[in-house]
Amino acid sequence: MMKQIPDIVVGRLPKYLQALEHMLKDGIKTTSSQELGDSIGISAAQIRKDLSQFGEFGKQGTGYSIRFLIDQIQSILHIKRPWELVLVGVGDLGNALARYQGFSNRGFHIALAFDNDPTKIGKTIGNVVIEDIADMAEVVRVKGVKLAMLTVPASAAQSAAEELVKGGIQAILNYAPISLNLPEEVHVEYIDPIVKLQHMTYYLE
Amino acid sequence: MMKQIPDIVVGRLPKYLQALEHMLKDGIKTTSSQELGDSIGISAAQIRKDLSQFGEFGKQGTGYSIRFLIDQIQSILHIKRPWELVLVGVGDLGNALARYQGFSNRGFHIALAFDNDPTKIGKTIGNVVIEDIADMAEVVRVKGVKLAMLTVPASAAQSAAEELVKGGIQAILNYAPISLNLPEEVHVEYIDPIVKLQHMTYYLE
Repeated sequence: MMKQIPDIVVGRLPKYLQALEHMLKDGIKTTSSQELGDSIGISAAQIRKDLSQFGEFGKQGTGYSIRFLIDQIQSILHIKRPWELVLVGVGDLGNALARYQGFSNRGFHIALAFDNDPTKIGKTIGNVVIEDIADMAEVVRVKGVKLAMLTVPASAAQSAAEELVKGGIQAILNYAPISLNLPEEVHVEYIDPIVKLQHMTYYLE
Repeated sequence: MMKQIPDIVVGRLPKYLQALEHMLKDGIKTTSSQELGDSIGISAAQIRKDLSQFGEFGKQGTGYSIRFLIDQIQSILHIKRPWELVLVGVGDLGNALARYQGFSNRGFHIALAFDNDPTKIGKTIGNVVIEDIADMAEVVRVKGVKLAMLTVPASAAQSAAEELVKGGIQAILNYAPISLNLPEEVHVEYIDPIVKLQHMTYYLE
């Protein structure tokens, strides 16, 4: 049954989780689908429908226990455990990501970093030593990491992604502004500010 | 009629555009909805349906002229003209974005940058001098910029966004991991790697 949840619903769960975590930090203990929806711009009906796909989380009239709902969503998303990440490409963006505390605070730890620049290889970024991208597939396989962030130039992204897949990577967050062509079982998400900006200019004069 | 296009369709157009631009760079002149769809993991039927909302772009059997389709999508998204951007928050990520060539290459120019750190104010980043965030609303209004990227910490994001709106900003790309509560007419898009990673861990064991 879990496997039939539409991907678009799965994709909204982290947003619900983020909002719930902010509420909890603000000392709020219970919430309603209306309140949660208002805080993230999604309708209450949509939230109820999404959550109902995973089970019965709230009681009619009393709303959701925030702590319980956070716990449930964390279980669904498999983030009750920490995850290790591979960072590929230590340019300006890779550097910024390696220094960003938000990953380890939320259970994602950069365990390996790779670049092809000899002046960077051997240097330390965050808590890891930058290794040669030529060794990536093997090092990643030995370490057993399943998640990667790709911050190489567009021209290098496809071949780096293929090396990651050879190393056993199952999911890639791709910052390079290009679509990756990978085996179907590899999950890919994209982050591209240009795509987001061009989405918004549609609404501007 | 244009105003009735679903936002989710508008959001796919920049992805089509990106794929088409890569094809054009590779010397390809025409494409089909099937080929375009394969390259970005969207069904051919979806692409035909999306594009038909804006008019008649291809001929049955002969496919789309890539150059023509790029031109049309650029018109629809209002990106035949350049856009100026405000960058708010010049930490590691703001720095990386200010140095990223991909913005100006695609017609987005960082025209103003703000921070609250006295050691940063007055320094140059990219082509702009970092100004005091306390002056932001006024400076933005005088310059007439309509688009902003927000790369401040979560705790500062809501108030910075409100200042931007006071300055006349109509669209914000928010990198802070928090939902913004702004007037309905202000467009907000979010970039949060944690949300993307948590989406993918659902599919991993």
